[in-house]
This record gives sequence, structure tokens and C-alpha cells, in this order.
Amino acid sequence: MDNKNENVSILGFAGSLRKDSYNKMLLTAAQELSPENVKIEIFDLEGIPLFNQDLESKPNDKIKIFKEKIKAADGLLIVTPEYNYSVPGVLKNAIDAASRPKSANPFEEKPTGIMGASIGMIGTARAQYHLRQTMVFLNSYIMNRPEIMVTFAEGKFDQAGRLTDEVTRQKVKEFIVALLQWIIKFK
Amino acid sequence: MDNKNENVSILGFAGSLRKDSYNKMLLTAAQELSPENVKIEIFDLEGIPLFNQDLESKPNDKIKIFKEKIKAADGLLIVTPEYNYSVPGVLKNAIDAASRPKSANPFEEKPTGIMGASIGMIGTARAQYHLRQTMVFLNSYIMNRPEIMVTFAEGKFDQAGRLTDEVTRQKVKEFIVALLQWIIKFK
Amino acid sequence: MDNKNENVSILGFAGSLRKDSYNKMLLTAAQELSPENVKIEIFDLEGIPLFNQDLESKPNDKIKIFKEKIKAADGLLIVTPEYNYSVPGVLKNAIDAASRPKSANPFEEKPTGIMGASIGMIGTARAQYHLRQTMVFLNSYIMNRPEIMVTFAEGKFDQAGRLTDEVTRQKVKEFIVALLQWIIKFK
Amino acid sequence: MDNKNENVSILGFAGSLRKDSYNKMLLTAAQELSPENVKIEIFDLEGIPLFNQDLESKPNDKIKIFKEKIKAADGLLIVTPEYNYSVPGVLKNAIDAASRPKSANPFEEKPTGIMGASIGMIGTARAQYHLRQTMVFLNSYIMNRPEIMVTFAEGKFDQAGRLTDEVTRQKVKEFIVALLQWIIKFK
Repeated sequence: MDNKNENVSILGFAGSLRKDSYNKMLLTAAQELSPENVKIEIFDLEGIPLFNQDLESKPNDKIKIFKEKIKAADGLLIVTPEYNYSVPGVLKNAIDAASRPKSANPFEEKPTGIMGASIGMIGTARAQYHLRQTMVFLNSYIMNRPEIMVTFAEGKFDQAGRLTDEVTRQKVKEFIVALLQWIIKFK
Repeated sequence: MDNKNENVSILGFAGSLRKDSYNKMLLTAAQELSPENVKIEIFDLEGIPLFNQDLESKPNDKIKIFKEKIKAADGLLIVTPEYNYSVPGVLKNAIDAASRPKSANPFEEKPTGIMGASIGMIGTARAQYHLRQTMVFLNSYIMNRPEIMVTFAEGKFDQAGRLTDEVTRQKVKEFIVALLQWIIKFK
Repeated sequence: MDNKNENVSILGFAGSLRKDSYNKMLLTAAQELSPENVKIEIFDLEGIPLFNQDLESKPNDKIKIFKEKIKAADGLLIVTPEYNYSVPGVLKNAIDAASRPKSANPFEEKPTGIMGASIGMIGTARAQYHLRQTMVFLNSYIMNRPEIMVTFAEGKFDQAGRLTDEVTRQKVKEFIVALLQWIIKFK
Repeated sequence: MDNKNENVSILGFAGSLRKDSYNKMLLTAAQELSPENVKIEIFDLEGIPLFNQDLESKPNDKIKIFKEKIKAADGLLIVTPEYNYSVPGVLKNAIDAASRPKSANPFEEKPTGIMGASIGMIGTARAQYHLRQTMVFLNSYIMNRPEIMVTFAEGKFDQAGRLTDEVTRQKVKEFIVALLQWIIKFK
């Protein structure tokens, strides 16, 4: 099929509020390394408040925009750090906030890829499998493979935050192409 | 041994900001149903900000107090709702915030019990196992058994938020006695 | 689309060797409750030996047949008991044996549904999420929803092993229709 | 306290039937690297049949001996490979078989350490967390830390199966000392 050249829009977000987050850098690298027909828009989670169900009928503007962008995208790219052997509270909270109320879950049937970077040797594997379980409930279609778990991230990005490790750059390229095909499968 | 009568202090917190949270009610029930020598202090997570590693050296007062109270307690009782098949972002974020910096992790070697309530039939089992994995990293000593997963919570509390279901009241009592013994084991 | 009437073949297997296994009964019920165009063939795991990598190039006949049937089917239905808060060794071993060598993994891109029955109140949820993680590696496409976790199974089947609980029968019917649509999505 | 010199007996088993299993080699290394007062006896899982609940009242001799040895030991050391992102069927089956009937669960309150080796970069982390969940049900006391996940095992053992990597040898030594202290805590 020729549809690898179809235009596809992806909303990407990284689960960290830290300025020099390796996960933000990894997301930027994915954006840069995407083929021409794939456009990754990056959404910053800063400004999404802690979720309180009492207020779920009056979400703030940031949440409203987040939900609309998720709904509008052809697919998602979630880049997760690992905190305390699981998904960071910041990322889980953003997903919780966007998922409510249940009747307006924007993740429904959304093809999604997951990656992550860490300074340790496990590279966010533990966080990624917890995140996959969350997305089962939300009925996103999470791509199984390839997986990207960037280990020892401190040696793979330069001072300016650019991904410099060639092996990882190649893997990110392949990941985005696989995600493109995964998204097209459900169109 | 006679040490079942030893005085023990437990810090309890529920992973919800909602006013009429069943998990808050369950925690209050645990407090009420504790034997005389067990004192459960309830800590409200409202006011713990979203964690940003750039600011971890300057935690706000609420986080400072949370950390001190965790450190001072003989044991912990964490009451977790289940959001999207995992730990709520609000609870995970509070744990992330309290756990940093790593050198001052107050959860270290702290005997801990986990319970949860939900309106569904699984009763937060999925959240509880994710939380257990997080506490492995933080080196808390999580009690294995008994487990409390309150299902169909909407029928087990009255309008005033009091746990009325007799079977559940009995289970909570037994849970606290088991947690007491678990805490004493490590003293 | 009219393709709901397409003929679809599903291979089903239950993770128990016990004669009167509720999970075997549940699988039989799924077979009985399928629409006319869905044919579920039941495969019995009895005779699949414990996996030993030294012998993986000479699988016994039962494994060979199992692998061929998985490959030939349009989709899979795995019915898992829960032993010790996870997938039974018997089921995990059958999957391990069938998955090797990696180059001939028959689960690759196979649309798959998971259900389970237990006599407890959790209904195999813990086993199902572990199984989902295994199928990520094997790159099966596991349907997210609906999920079937039959609780208190001892009251839902009659002496002859027939599923008699009407609510569960209805859920099984809906599950099979959803699985049919999931399978067709990938054809 | 001076009780670090107390004599302690540990039963160790590796979750593989393969002759040249890296996990068996790792277990042998742990045995060799133990301090004088720690005796690790290695139990081979070969001969434990696939579990069938219909036959649980008549376990074969191998299972009987396995259960007795677990019961008699002061602590356990489980060395797990990772197959298909989880515990190998062979290991899970041995645990299932030994755990039954529930009233005679030999894992009850047994202090236990987990390690694992793999040829990949994740080093059995995924299997280890699934195994931890299983041991929650069985009420073993699993040591949280340190964790041993030997990555790229093919370069860390010599032809004779001896662990040659110095960093890993040191970690194994520290692990056994920590496990010794963990076991003594519960005596």
C-alpha cells in the first residue's frame, strides 16, 4: 500500500514539568526525526491542575484544550519518565484530568505510542507497563512494538538538549514510522 | 507476646481531593475502629503541589509537614482510589513529592498498610498492586495480608459518610490489628 | 459495514488441566453463545510438556499442532484462571512453549480476547493484566474492552458445567461480538 | 547486634530446566559467594509435574520434597529468568504446585530474595515484579532491596558457567548479606 505517505497528525506530551527533562528532549527528537508526512505537535502539561472530581464539570482552559487536541489528533505519543517504579504523578494526573467525565474520554480508540528515557539502566520499563494498563481502561490502542526505553540518558543528549546518540536516533526514526503505520491501520 | 498493647502511631492519607470521597470515609472508619493503643492521624493531600524536580530543594510547607509526619509515624496507612486502572495521579504525585530528594526518603523501612474503596466490583485491586510496586522502590514494608478492597462502596456508607456495612467494619478492625502487629515486628 | 457476517475462526484455550474447571466451562459457553459466523475451536492444553529451551528445536506433536492451529486461526480466545495472583504456570508454560523459537512466534499480530472465571470476588483480574503484558512481547493484538471477569463462579454454572447465569451469558455474547469486530478490523 | 554471624539456611531455586541456564549459574554464584554462616541449598525444578488441581491431594515425591525443603529453610532465594515479559511457566508452575493445598502453603511468612539474569538489557525486571505480586498472595516476605537484574548475561559468565564479572560478583555478595539480615529480622 502507498498509504505510508498519508498525512498524519500526532499529539505528543512528556510526563515531566522539569525544564531540562530528558523525556521532553526525547519528544523533541521524535518531532525532528519524523518523516515529512508526520506532524508531531508537542503539548506541555504545565498548568493542568490536580484532579478533583468535585470540579470535573468545570475543567480549566488548559484541560479543555488538552482534551480537544487529543480528540483532534490521529494518534498520540506519550513520553514517560519513571518515578518510584511507576508513572509520574504529574503524567497520571494529566491523563486522569483529560479522561473525565467518562462519557467524553478523548483517548477512546486512539492509536498511541509510548516511549521513555531515564538515567538508570531500566529505562522506564516499569512505568511503561503501568501506563499500558491505564490505557486499557481508556481503550487507547497502544502499539506493542518497537519499544523505546532510553537508558543512561545523561550520555545521549548534548548541552542544548539534542539527542546525539546515533543508535537511539535510528530507533526513534523507526519507532515513528511504525507508529505511523499503526495509526493508518485504524483509519 | 504482650506487645499488642504497645502504643503505635499511624499516619493515614487517602488519595483523593474530593470532599465526599469513599476512600476518605474508609480512612475515617479505620481511625474510629482502631484499638485504643493505635492512633491514626489523618493527613489531607490538599495543598501538595504538582512535583517539579527543578524545585525539589525548596518544597512548600505542606510537603515539609507531610514528610516530617511520615518520618515521625511508626507506620503508614495509604487508602487508594483507583483511577483508570492505576493509582490516582493525585496520590502518586504526593508520594513523588514526599519521596524527594532520594537521600531523604521518609518511606524508608516504614511498615505500611494499603486499602481502597471503589464503586465497581474490583475494589481498587489494580491500583493497589501498582502502589505496592512503587513502595518496593521506596523500601516501605508493605503488609501482604489481609487486603481490603471495598467493592460497591455506594451501598456501604451512609449519608453522613459513616461506614455502615458490618462485614466491612469487621474486616477493617482485623486489618488494623494485623497492621499493628506488622508495625511491632519491625520495632 | 456488512462484514459482521464474515466467517471468522477462533482458537480458544483455557489455562487449566482440571476436569471440572470453571474456565473450561466458560470457554464452552463462549463457543455455544457465538453467532453463526464465528467458529470457536477448543484446544486442550493437556500434553504440552514443561518448556526446556535445550529441546526447543524438537517440539513434541502436541506443541506442533498447537502452533499450527494458532497460526491458522483468525483470532484467539484465552481463558485464564488466576493462581497465586497471576497466570497459572500451566497456561504460561503453554504460551512459552508455543512462542519458541522467536522467529516462529505464532501469536504475532493475532487479534486476541481474554476472559477468566474464579470463585473469588476479583474474578482473575490480576492474572489478566499479567497475561496482557506477556502478549505485548508476543505482539498479539489484545482487545481492550469489554472485559469478562466471572466472579463467584461456583454459583453461575450448573452440575453439568453449563453457564446458567443470564447476566453472564449476555456478557459473553457481547464479548464474542466485540471480538469478532476486533478481528475483522485487522483483516 | 552481633547476629550477622547466626547460621542461616536458604533454599535456592532457578526457574529454568535448561542445562546451561544463566539463572542456574547465577544461583551457583550466590552459593559460592555467601558468607560462611549462610548455607544455600540448590533445588532443581526438574521433575515437578504440571499442576492439576484434581491431583493436588496426591503430589508426587518431588513436590513433597520441595515443600518440605521450603518449610525447613530459614529463607528462600528465587532466581527467575524472564520469558515473554513475565515469570517462566516452569517457575510459576513449581510455585503453584508447592503452594497447594492453601492450608499447607510453605511460603507463608518466609523471608525471600529474588534475582534474575537475562541476555537482554532489562535483566528480568518485568518477571521479578510479577513474581513479587504472586508472593504477596503467598505471604512471603520479599526483600525490597537490593535488587539484582543481571543484564547481558552472555558476557558475564565463562565457559564453565562461573560468574566472572567483578561488579556483579560484588553485588551478589552484598545481596546475600542483605538477605541474611532480612531473614534474621523475622526470626
